[in-house]
Order: sequence, then structure tokens, then C-alpha cells
Amino acid sequence: MHKITASYTDLYQLTMAQVYFLKQEHEEVSVFDYFFRKLPFHSGYAIFSGLEVLIDILEDFRFQPEELDFLEKEGFHKDFIKYLADFQFNGEIRSVQEGDLVFPTRPVLQVKASIIEAQIIETVLLNILNFQTLIATKASRIRCAAPKAKLIDFGMRRAHATGAYYASRAAFIGGFDATSNVKSAIDFDMPVSGTMAHAFIQSYDSELTAFRDFAAVHPTNCVLLIDTYDTLKSGLPNAITVAKELKAKGYKLNGIRLDSGDLAYLSKKCRVLLDEEGLTDVKIAASNQLDEHVIKSLNDQKAPIDVYGVGTNLVIGHPDAALGGVYKLAYAYGKPRIKLSENVLKSTLPSEKQVYRIRNQENELLGADVVTQNAETEVSKMHHPFDPTKSTTYHSHKLEPLLKPVMENGKRLNPKPSLVQIKAYAAERLNALPEEYKRFANPHIYKVGISSQLLETREKLRATLKK
Amino acid sequence: MHKITASYTDLYQLTMAQVYFLKQEHEEVSVFDYFFRKLPFHSGYAIFSGLEVLIDILEDFRFQPEELDFLEKEGFHKDFIKYLADFQFNGEIRSVQEGDLVFPTRPVLQVKASIIEAQIIETVLLNILNFQTLIATKASRIRCAAPKAKLIDFGMRRAHATGAYYASRAAFIGGFDATSNVKSAIDFDMPVSGTMAHAFIQSYDSELTAFRDFAAVHPTNCVLLIDTYDTLKSGLPNAITVAKELKAKGYKLNGIRLDSGDLAYLSKKCRVLLDEEGLTDVKIAASNQLDEHVIKSLNDQKAPIDVYGVGTNLVIGHPDAALGGVYKLAYAYGKPRIKLSENVLKSTLPSEKQVYRIRNQENELLGADVVTQNAETEVSKMHHPFDPTKSTTYHSHKLEPLLKPVMENGKRLNPKPSLVQIKAYAAERLNALPEEYKRFANPHIYKVGISSQLLETREKLRATLKK
Repeated sequence: MHKITASYTDLYQLTMAQVYFLKQEHEEVSVFDYFFRKLPFHSGYAIFSGLEVLIDILEDFRFQPEELDFLEKEGFHKDFIKYLADFQFNGEIRSVQEGDLVFPTRPVLQVKASIIEAQIIETVLLNILNFQTLIATKASRIRCAAPKAKLIDFGMRRAHATGAYYASRAAFIGGFDATSNVKSAIDFDMPVSGTMAHAFIQSYDSELTAFRDFAAVHPTNCVLLIDTYDTLKSGLPNAITVAKELKAKGYKLNGIRLDSGDLAYLSKKCRVLLDEEGLTDVKIAASNQLDEHVIKSLNDQKAPIDVYGVGTNLVIGHPDAALGGVYKLAYAYGKPRIKLSENVLKSTLPSEKQVYRIRNQENELLGADVVTQNAETEVSKMHHPFDPTKSTTYHSHKLEPLLKPVMENGKRLNPKPSLVQIKAYAAERLNALPEEYKRFANPHIYKVGISSQLLETREKLRATLKK
Repeated sequence: MHKITASYTDLYQLTMAQVYFLKQEHEEVSVFDYFFRKLPFHSGYAIFSGLEVLIDILEDFRFQPEELDFLEKEGFHKDFIKYLADFQFNGEIRSVQEGDLVFPTRPVLQVKASIIEAQIIETVLLNILNFQTLIATKASRIRCAAPKAKLIDFGMRRAHATGAYYASRAAFIGGFDATSNVKSAIDFDMPVSGTMAHAFIQSYDSELTAFRDFAAVHPTNCVLLIDTYDTLKSGLPNAITVAKELKAKGYKLNGIRLDSGDLAYLSKKCRVLLDEEGLTDVKIAASNQLDEHVIKSLNDQKAPIDVYGVGTNLVIGHPDAALGGVYKLAYAYGKPRIKLSENVLKSTLPSEKQVYRIRNQENELLGADVVTQNAETEVSKMHHPFDPTKSTTYHSHKLEPLLKPVMENGKRLNPKPSLVQIKAYAAERLNALPEEYKRFANPHIYKVGISSQLLETREKLRATLKK
């Protein structure tokens, strides 16, 4: 749906690019890291999402003629405009696979390209990866709160305009089963779901007639919304009537939906009353300002809810609403580069790097990722990235490399996985993570460290810059 | 950029629509209200935004062939698919003008259309209006905190993917002067702004050389970022050197930018040191996790900051991140309709309505909007919408009708205003609002009431439904 062209960028990428270009240094090789400094939602992990969308965009990231006209009017140099007319991304990207677990400080993705290309793609890269990683992580937490329920994304109406398009995709990767968003379902090949709103029932004089009319048209896909007037006195009895009528015709009512009131109390009441009528296979769906904490509480109360529709809090990534991922220079003009900062937590890691996940001989996670210089293949000592006094030593461990080439010469390297494959990979990676990293209250902190070589390179650079 | 087609909707709009269609009742006239129940950010007002985008979308809201194929595979009836193939919005919309002040409970916009059309457009309407009204309101608050500063939207990298496109537009309407977002600037005709990032400086061995190179290429549009290494010991002295060099060549340095550290302290220091060098016209720009509260504090401290770049907190609408606008049935099948709710605050207002802003004979605002039945032209008594014991009486007042026709037969009625015109209208309307409604701490509450006639219609309906 969304054709994203190369003017989908911050202006300063172009003002900087023009300087590189006019100095004729724009072909200098540079390396940039994408990473974030803080996990959202006080979560113990994040789910990386957005990569395959980004690759699609970058394969065809061009300036359109009207965009070039605009830039010329803004005062950009004619030779630079000519360069932009032929601009395309020819660089290479190494990245964590979409759906994998990612943690703060360590690179999630690394771009190696001419400095002008690496700079011009920065904004779209951050825009696409930050948001989808935020939402996939939120979705994953909701999935953890309701391991067996069907989860449906209902958030389109409260999403940030067309951000909804990608929110639904990321929610699916994070563990949702379906979306109400038809456009995203079509374009990303996801199951789509939805039945009726209050307005449908209000448009009738009788709730029962509304239910009957809906069931007549949708006898195999009928979930009745029962809280328009009075859930237990009107909605449920009418739904039971229609369920029996459907049964008599050889169909079955799929479910009832609660959208207000005390969902624990009402779902229990409804379950008992449905079961008493022999309607044990009628499912109970619930919606209304849900998030992982409300759903966990409902589960703790043994609310017999089979399906959750989650809207606003999912698609806006409540309460954080943003992942602060950044894109920092690590190498340029033949030299490793860092950013110093008075806040040591904001300093960066130099050079091309690799990230390894540390496992034991049984292949179990040891709760640590280590960042190394690119050529390193053996690491036994891992240093705290910001506290020089702290280090950990590993023995008879295995290292799983996480950054793998995904683009070369501006082209996708591997076949594009389906969304179902990405979702399955996310689930597999999350399954392997011990429970203590997944709990909501004070999750265990997954360690991220740096190798001795990387530490040394950084400290040398820091000393030089301090002079 | 974003072609939004008619499948940009929740599936349930289509399952409901199919029932209306197969019953051949889909042409029944219905009326839906768009309104919200709670102001975001504890604000005393909201700025309505998104209307002109919505009208553009609705004028060309069609299903594409591949979307119809998908719906057919999902099991929709062939006759209904045929109907959707020719679907277009032919209804009428009356609305508050884009940029006006809006308040909870009262309709912001009213759709009158066949029930099938009114239903199919619901999701896109909410998706477009909720988000832009949220962001325009946030932007307006930031403008109130910094009445004289230049405000630039820097948020694209943290926005919700392509939601950035509309965030920048809404920020401009709310009072921002420019955006870093090139694509939005092109499509919505807004000033674009941006100069350099830390990476540019890091790519050099010397900060001074980086500044000089940038100034050489952009002598008339040069803002130097001075916090890469050490703001006062390195960045500022180097910027002063370049400013003098530019001056000697007949140019001037536009500004310096602070992106970390204590912005109040640093801006004061920089101002003094710049002024001592005779560089009184070099402006100071600041960025780094700003919002209306931080900016107000900087202003209270008399920080000499001329330009603010605001990113994440603006474009995600921190901390609310969503406006809970809803779209509720008010009329169908020849009758006014309401939704009852156990929570009285969630009940709705029936019928076609008008909303009047109450003014005195001097045309000053009296801090109240009153909702009436459509035909009413005189109102002197206004009732609290939810508390029957409360009412207010007005004398020698004037009523300004707020809902005006903007679409008829699915077509735009009025010439499309430019964004600058919408922004000016927003500023004019906000200017007329007394200060006590604009303060951040416990703003005065703008009153919204309903007319006696409307109250009577609602209570009659409520009584009938309760039976």
C-alpha cells in the first residue's frame, strides 16, 4: 500500500550528503549500527521486527522527479540533484533475523555502505524498525499473558494513522493470531477477523432480531456482541436463543463477545449459563482496553475467556509508545569511530562487529550476548560495556553468530520468509528463553557484554579523542 | 504518498454491511457522530485535525480488484462483492472546521449516509481523525509553552512508521513552523528544516574541519551541532571560529544546536560567549527529549533558546499516545438511536444535531458549547449531559453554529484550504480562548451541555429501551 520513496527522510541527511558529495568523498565506506539502549515496557527482552519490510523498501528506494524538483527549489546544488536522480542503495546489511530476541546496547543490524547511502537510509530504517520492534514486543508480552487464547488485533481505529498497517504485521509476528485490519491482512497474508459492532444492534428495535439477521447471513462465522443493552438479562439470553436456532439448522454459534463490565465476573457467569444450555462449544471473546496486565489478571482469576481482542494498548505500544532505537557511526574513512558522551551509557561501540549468543554444550541459552570485533571467532571473557571493573568468563560454551548478511549490493540475499515463518521463528526463539526473563515484574536481566578486543579498541579511541 | 483504499477498514464493517445488503436495507439513511470523551494530556482543549485528509480519502474510497478477490475467498457473497466493486461514499458530512477547538462529548463531525456507507467508512475516519487531533493538540501545547520560539518537528525516526507522514502535518496545524520530514513537506507544502547530525562530525578527525566543510557548502543555512565532544570546550569555540570566518566572507552563521546536557545552563553560557564575540545574531537551537513541560521550564528559567526541535514526545503524543474518539449511531431506520451503558458517561446522544459555541454580544467566548437537535436555532438553557440536576441559563448571548456541511453526495463542498490557512485558523481560534483554559496545571473546564429538546428526546428513548 505504502510506496515509500527516498524523500521519506529527515532533511539533514540530505544537507550532510551534499557536503560529502561536493567534497567527492561520498563513496567513502562507512559502517553504522542500529541498536537501542533500553527495553520497552520493563520487558526482559524485545522481539526484532520490521526487517523484511525494510529490505523491500531499500531495494527500491529512489527519488521521484517531483521530489527532486522540490529539493532543487530548496537550494540544493544541481550536481547533487543529478546524483540523487540516480540514487539507489547499493550497500550491504548484516542483521539479526526478523523475529529473534534482541537486547539493549548490542547491534541489532549493521549497515556497511558508502557514507552518503548509509546516511540517506537512516531515517527510514529507524522509522520502520523502531515501531515494529516495539509492537512485536508488546504483542509477545500479551501472548505470554494468554498462552492458549486466540489473540486478535483490533487497534486500527486508534493506531497512528497508516502506522496501523505495520502495527498489525508486527502484532502477528509477536504472537497474535489474526487482525481486524483488512488491508494488512491482504498485503501481509494474515488471517482476518471480525463480526459485529454495537451500531449494528442499535440500528434494530430488537436485539434478538439483530442477532437472528446476523446469524442468518453468517451461520458459520457468528460471534454475537452481547453487551449493548444488558449483558446477562438481554444479550446472553438472546444469544442462547440464536445458538439453539443455529444448532437446530446444523450450524453452531462460534461465540459471544463481552466489550464492557467486569470481564472476569461476566465471562464466568456466561460460561455457566451457556454450559447449562449444552452450548459448551460456544466460545467467549472479550475486549475493552486490554493489555498484558489485565489479561494476566483475568487468567489468574481463571476467567473462561477463549479469545481476546486487543486494540489501543497493543497498536500504540502503551505505555512507552516509542522504542528509542538509534543509528550510530562505527567506522568511516578507514578508521573506527565512536561518539563520546558525558553520559557513559550513551557512548557507542566502534568498528564492524559481530554479536554472539552464548550457549552451553547442550545448546541452552546462558543469558548473554557478546559483542566482538568482526573477525573474532573465540571469546571466553566478556566485559560489562560501561563498567570496566565487571567481567564474566565462560568455559566450554558455544557461540551462535547473530548478525548475518541480508543485503549485498543493495539486493536481498535470501528468499523472503513468509510472515508465518517469521512468527514461528519468534515463537521458537522465545520458547528457548527461560521463564525468569519473561515475567512482568522485575524480569531477570539478560547480559550484554563486549569482548576484550572491542573494549581495547574503544578505550584507545576514547583516549585519542579526549586529547 | 499513501493511497488508502476501501479495504483500509476493520473486517466487521464488511460482515455487518453484508447483512444490511442481503436484507436489501443497506440504503436506509443513518447518522453517526464522531466525538471523544476525554481530552488528552489533561489539556483544557483539543485542536481538531485530519478533516481535509479524510475528505480527500473519502472522495476516492474504492475497493481494488485484488481486495475484492480476497473478500470473495473469505466467503463474502458474490452479490455483495459486486456491490463492493461499485462502492463509493455518496453521503454527506457536517463538521467542525479543521483547526477549531473541540471538547469532549459533543459531536465533532456527523456523517449522514446510507447505513452501509456510513459503516464502511468508520475505521478510516477514526484512524485519520483520532491521530491528527492528538498530535495537533500536543503541538499546540508546545506552542503555548514557547510562544515566540521557532518550533521544528524532528520526530520521524520515532514515529509509528508511516504515521509520521500525518504527524508532521498535524504538528504544523497545531503551531509548529517546520518539519525535518521531507516527504510530508513536499506533499503538504510545509517548510522543511535540518542541518547536521553527530555522525557527520564523528566522520571527521577534527570537529573544526567538519564545521568548516559544512559551512563552505551551506554558507546561508548553517546550524552547527556543538555537543559531539565537549559543548563548551570544543563545540562552541569551534563554532565561534567558523562564525567569524563566515562573517569575514559576508555570510552569517545561522545558529548552534545543543542536543544534550543541561539546556538552560548551556544555552545561557553559549549566549554570553557568542555575544562577547559580537555574534548576537547567531541563534541557539535545542533538542533532546523535549515536550511542553520541559520547554515551559526552560522558558521559566529564561533560557535564551530561539529554536526548539521536538521529536518523540510530539509525534507519539506522549504520554497518551491515542485519542479515544468514537463513532456512534445516532439515527437509523427513521428513528433516533442511542447506546445505553451501565456507565452513564458512555451513553450517546440521539438524532441529527447541531453544536453551537456560546458567545456574548461582544463576541467573546463564554466557555461553553451546547449540543442541540438539528432544527433548533435558539437555546437559552443548557443541561449537563450526564447530570440531570445541573443546568445553566444564558441571556443576551449569541450562538455560533459549528457543524457545517463539508461533503455532499460524496463530494467536497468547499475549496480545500491550504495548510497555512488551517494553521492560521487554529491559531485564531486558540487566541480567542481565555488563558485559564490553556494552562497546564488544572485548566479551567470548558463546559459542554445539551439543549432541553435533546435531553427530552434522549430520556424518552432511554425509557423505551429500559422496558
